[in-house]
Amino acid sequence: MRLATLTSGGDCPGLNAVIRGIVRTANNEFGSTVVGYLDGWVGLLEDRRQDLYDDQWMDSILLRGGTILGTGRLHPDKFKAGLDQIKHNLEDAGIDALIPIGGEGTLKGAKWLADNGIPVVGVPKTIDNDVNATDYTFGFDTAVSVATDAIDRLHTTAESHNRILIVEVMGRHVGWIALHAGMAGGAHYTVIPEHPFDIEEITKAMERRFQMGEKYGIIVVAEGAVPKEGTLDIELGGEDEFGHQTFTGMGQLIGNEIHKRLGYDVRTTVLGHIQRGGTPTAYDRVLATRYGVSACRAAHEGDYGTCVALHGEDINLVSLEDAVDKLKQVPEYRYQTARSMFG
Amino acid sequence: MRLATLTSGGDCPGLNAVIRGIVRTANNEFGSTVVGYLDGWVGLLEDRRQDLYDDQWMDSILLRGGTILGTGRLHPDKFKAGLDQIKHNLEDAGIDALIPIGGEGTLKGAKWLADNGIPVVGVPKTIDNDVNATDYTFGFDTAVSVATDAIDRLHTTAESHNRILIVEVMGRHVGWIALHAGMAGGAHYTVIPEHPFDIEEITKAMERRFQMGEKYGIIVVAEGAVPKEGTLDIELGGEDEFGHQTFTGMGQLIGNEIHKRLGYDVRTTVLGHIQRGGTPTAYDRVLATRYGVSACRAAHEGDYGTCVALHGEDINLVSLEDAVDKLKQVPEYRYQTARSMFG
Amino acid sequence: MRLATLTSGGDCPGLNAVIRGIVRTANNEFGSTVVGYLDGWVGLLEDRRQDLYDDQWMDSILLRGGTILGTGRLHPDKFKAGLDQIKHNLEDAGIDALIPIGGEGTLKGAKWLADNGIPVVGVPKTIDNDVNATDYTFGFDTAVSVATDAIDRLHTTAESHNRILIVEVMGRHVGWIALHAGMAGGAHYTVIPEHPFDIEEITKAMERRFQMGEKYGIIVVAEGAVPKEGTLDIELGGEDEFGHQTFTGMGQLIGNEIHKRLGYDVRTTVLGHIQRGGTPTAYDRVLATRYGVSACRAAHEGDYGTCVALHGEDINLVSLEDAVDKLKQVPEYRYQTARSMFG
Amino acid sequence: MRLATLTSGGDCPGLNAVIRGIVRTANNEFGSTVVGYLDGWVGLLEDRRQDLYDDQWMDSILLRGGTILGTGRLHPDKFKAGLDQIKHNLEDAGIDALIPIGGEGTLKGAKWLADNGIPVVGVPKTIDNDVNATDYTFGFDTAVSVATDAIDRLHTTAESHNRILIVEVMGRHVGWIALHAGMAGGAHYTVIPEHPFDIEEITKAMERRFQMGEKYGIIVVAEGAVPKEGTLDIELGGEDEFGHQTFTGMGQLIGNEIHKRLGYDVRTTVLGHIQRGGTPTAYDRVLATRYGVSACRAAHEGDYGTCVALHGEDINLVSLEDAVDKLKQVPEYRYQTARSMFG
Repeated sequence: MRLATLTSGGDCPGLNAVIRGIVRTANNEFGSTVVGYLDGWVGLLEDRRQDLYDDQWMDSILLRGGTILGTGRLHPDKFKAGLDQIKHNLEDAGIDALIPIGGEGTLKGAKWLADNGIPVVGVPKTIDNDVNATDYTFGFDTAVSVATDAIDRLHTTAESHNRILIVEVMGRHVGWIALHAGMAGGAHYTVIPEHPFDIEEITKAMERRFQMGEKYGIIVVAEGAVPKEGTLDIELGGEDEFGHQTFTGMGQLIGNEIHKRLGYDVRTTVLGHIQRGGTPTAYDRVLATRYGVSACRAAHEGDYGTCVALHGEDINLVSLEDAVDKLKQVPEYRYQTARSMFG
Repeated sequence: MRLATLTSGGDCPGLNAVIRGIVRTANNEFGSTVVGYLDGWVGLLEDRRQDLYDDQWMDSILLRGGTILGTGRLHPDKFKAGLDQIKHNLEDAGIDALIPIGGEGTLKGAKWLADNGIPVVGVPKTIDNDVNATDYTFGFDTAVSVATDAIDRLHTTAESHNRILIVEVMGRHVGWIALHAGMAGGAHYTVIPEHPFDIEEITKAMERRFQMGEKYGIIVVAEGAVPKEGTLDIELGGEDEFGHQTFTGMGQLIGNEIHKRLGYDVRTTVLGHIQRGGTPTAYDRVLATRYGVSACRAAHEGDYGTCVALHGEDINLVSLEDAVDKLKQVPEYRYQTARSMFG
Repeated sequence: MRLATLTSGGDCPGLNAVIRGIVRTANNEFGSTVVGYLDGWVGLLEDRRQDLYDDQWMDSILLRGGTILGTGRLHPDKFKAGLDQIKHNLEDAGIDALIPIGGEGTLKGAKWLADNGIPVVGVPKTIDNDVNATDYTFGFDTAVSVATDAIDRLHTTAESHNRILIVEVMGRHVGWIALHAGMAGGAHYTVIPEHPFDIEEITKAMERRFQMGEKYGIIVVAEGAVPKEGTLDIELGGEDEFGHQTFTGMGQLIGNEIHKRLGYDVRTTVLGHIQRGGTPTAYDRVLATRYGVSACRAAHEGDYGTCVALHGEDINLVSLEDAVDKLKQVPEYRYQTARSMFG
Repeated sequence: MRLATLTSGGDCPGLNAVIRGIVRTANNEFGSTVVGYLDGWVGLLEDRRQDLYDDQWMDSILLRGGTILGTGRLHPDKFKAGLDQIKHNLEDAGIDALIPIGGEGTLKGAKWLADNGIPVVGVPKTIDNDVNATDYTFGFDTAVSVATDAIDRLHTTAESHNRILIVEVMGRHVGWIALHAGMAGGAHYTVIPEHPFDIEEITKAMERRFQMGEKYGIIVVAEGAVPKEGTLDIELGGEDEFGHQTFTGMGQLIGNEIHKRLGYDVRTTVLGHIQRGGTPTAYDRVLATRYGVSACRAAHEGDYGTCVALHGEDINLVSLEDAVDKLKQVPEYRYQTARSMFG
């Protein structure tokens, strides 16, 4: 059998572990070959690809961040317009099945290809952990670890200076990274998109800390945080491709508002791209490797139109349709548990 | 309400996060107080305890390894003989419910106390991940991370010297740490107790690597690894408290046997206690905190005789009986997936 | 003998190791006692202090970032106006010698106190490594490590997306952190205040990389970077207390200019406070401990008006006058060595 | 000009950074080419080599442990017998100057080659930091960091169990790693080869800790530690190539003796090869890169028979003769400073 894979959308620690898992399983379990298309769907459309061998280089990429195949974004219209070209390219290269690795958009594309007769098995990838069909996605644990390390560092410097520190983490539509990093880092308040914030409540929480003799506060803010309607008059945002309103610089804004109200020294740190780069955690390497193995096996067993997913301890297959039907948001009860820890 | 908690058995990164989770939830959600018994069951028998307040110190222990309450081991006979004393001490201190945090032995003790009328909610703790009722236990991810970091470091030094390196990791009865660290670290062979090893097969795997031009090999060995019956004549072991045969120095032994057969330079590293100490990973801090919150809530809701457990994304309650009925071993299909990656 | 210490100015990993070094040496070598003034010079003026004992807590602070004494800033005029109060407070508390730990401003204050008859031994502290009298200051190695970790992470994500990534690091007046982190992180260009930048040259360096088939570039920018006179028309800055012109957001600005010229996707990460917080590196713990020991000994030997300093492998005493006479800048030959590595 | 380099002796984090520094400087500053001999002196004798280009791969090795050239050991007699072959090989390959990177033995070999007319510039490499001519060698900081991380982890687990933990670190002839890691890790006793230990004194130090209410002790032992003459009857050792007596398993032995005397639970961890593998610290990457740049420049300037060395902030050239005349040992005053911190 001859498989093809590609990585699409934002990069994520663990992508290379998936690729290695596919290539090695193909080689060790099935004697199959694997081709990698470059720069996501674009490379598939333009027939830019390379053979992937189970060699020393393949072995060495396990702990490397990013993706050896490169990644890219392609507008859905161009993607759909290219169906014939895609079919032609796959046929021409002798590909029996395609394993695209990507986020919600990529999996929607994968589903559309499957609906149009291309044998596809998807691998979910999102650093934000917002894919509904799976318990966790690889890259998420690394992002949470990087953010938690940063918060750990900020505690001591905030404390020494009697400061409030705001840490803005990734999460444009969902607050999973903020939720977990805030809980792991011992944040004194965490703001997530799913639970619109009330600036007065945050301010009071900080005020209460100082009144009780504490000398500092750490607030974790997901980049996609939104104010409770009618509570804060801001004009920072726009609309994203899902039609949600977005704001940029939300960490800075919350910091400014708290400073205005309390007068304390407030500083904001935007963690940015360091959350998505670098060596994946052991957790993410295991999860990504298992995804690669399972996707490769599914392709060999003809389980097309599916997507691998983590359920408890097991990797299962779910339909691509179920995988992309909605964003996985932080449920309110999880946020309430986090709030019990604000202190 | 007035709760008591204690930590028993080997220490484990995340114990303090559980304690903090209990204390803060008791304080923030219920206005309850918490007492900590010192040095495990011994402290409960001897009535050594301290009040645990939701203060700055409690806040600061989240990222600290070990246990602020100390831990210890108590022979089951002494434990059972002390029932009246335990009841008296709990009553005297005005304790409404007890939350012991510990491994299989501790949870068995907890079950026995529950059977004898003491209101108990257990929290599973095992660095080996061998508690059957829960997907994962806290401390396990930290141990795997430490072992993976070590394996990452060993790759480059092994390669520079044309060496085979053996890494012995924890896991006396189950091979979870070896399985995950071996997969995350890109080991070329992993040996676990659940799958008795054949020294000839390991040797051949290493030989094949060198024949293919590779310059080194890394083998991860769980300390409880056992040879396939009749394949290796060794007399290293004894019997443990469960009646299983045990061997010590298995990593060294496997190294010696390979060296004898192939002549290559072989070195063994025994990771030992660094796997169980130090700052917990973000993953373990979140899991441990959630365990603490859930155990505290269960105690307030009167769900006695239970134990908290992770199932997928959720923390549930299971009966203490189910939690301790057998060790959770690595299933064969998981080991076969790992083998596909040996390369 | 009875010593006092205090920490002043920005916090820095290693401050607690110095304090522990002073307290333990006073106790173990001399049987002396130590007092800590809180929040820098302010605490000395207001007589807020605590006794520091060589207990378990003192032992545990070695690896903790920040300062257990708190820190603060005091305007030199207020400081000088308080001389009589300072003398009175020290006498009243029975202090025989004072060991202030701080940066250039603090050491100038220390010199002024020494000139006015107060027995003072200084300990240099600057995360920027800009104190002239010493090879290196503690905290610097930690800041470089944190910045290097971040750059390591950014390589893979930049590469996967064909991006130029700008990393703005600390260094308002000197470029030591940028120089070392850029060299350790394999940056493709590094901009430091001592060597005004030419935006056209940076742009060409990036262009050349892409022409040679590389897919990304990493540029490290010290926050105090300044453009070559006449090359870039910007109005971001002001004047700092030393009369130097300063600019804020220099990383962002350089990114914008490159994007304007080349059209490539450019993203900027401002590392901010994570560089100064958290556990110190082993290097910084050793250096800080040795500073504490030496300062304590100097105080007991009556070597007042001095400051401890690292020269090669040794800790020596230098006069406070020499310590503060000018900022230690990156010499041009060091920058040229860094440039040879840009690649 | 055409340079050759090779790496010899035990591997060490930073070797690749030196190689990259040489290659890139040769390319960027001089337009020269570089050849790498494989597996140390052996590859030079057997004329196994590869051209080293300043390409993406060269760029990527900065943070990789080990050595891309491989390393090996060659008996001095064989080495000397091969002089004509070496000369022939170098001439045949058109090599103008040779830059061997290695420890004391390698530098002695380099000196002998220089004495025999071969243009040589040496780069000192020893994880033990025992080369006399230089303040510090690269790899040392990484080894100290790895050991300190391990000690940090052991504190919490030792404390939770009322244990004494022994950590055996590298250092067969000198105690630099033990000295620095012990100080950075807050060890309660450190044993180094330069200061023969008295088991009774160590025992008393531990006893005193427990009497004062502490619950554990951490002892760092250099592998080359030796007992004070006449204080301990042991027969573990042999003689090394320098005629010094050596002992193996010294950490374990000290542990056994303390357990025998005090009865406390004592556990020993031997850190082993993890100290020498893996990503170098930022400090080591900078030092190694600067060594490479300076050695390359020295070769171009005809400064043969020399060795690069760190003195304070500067990289200087010293004669190979001075570099190898004796081992750099820990001076007694440095050990006494460490002792002040035992606590």
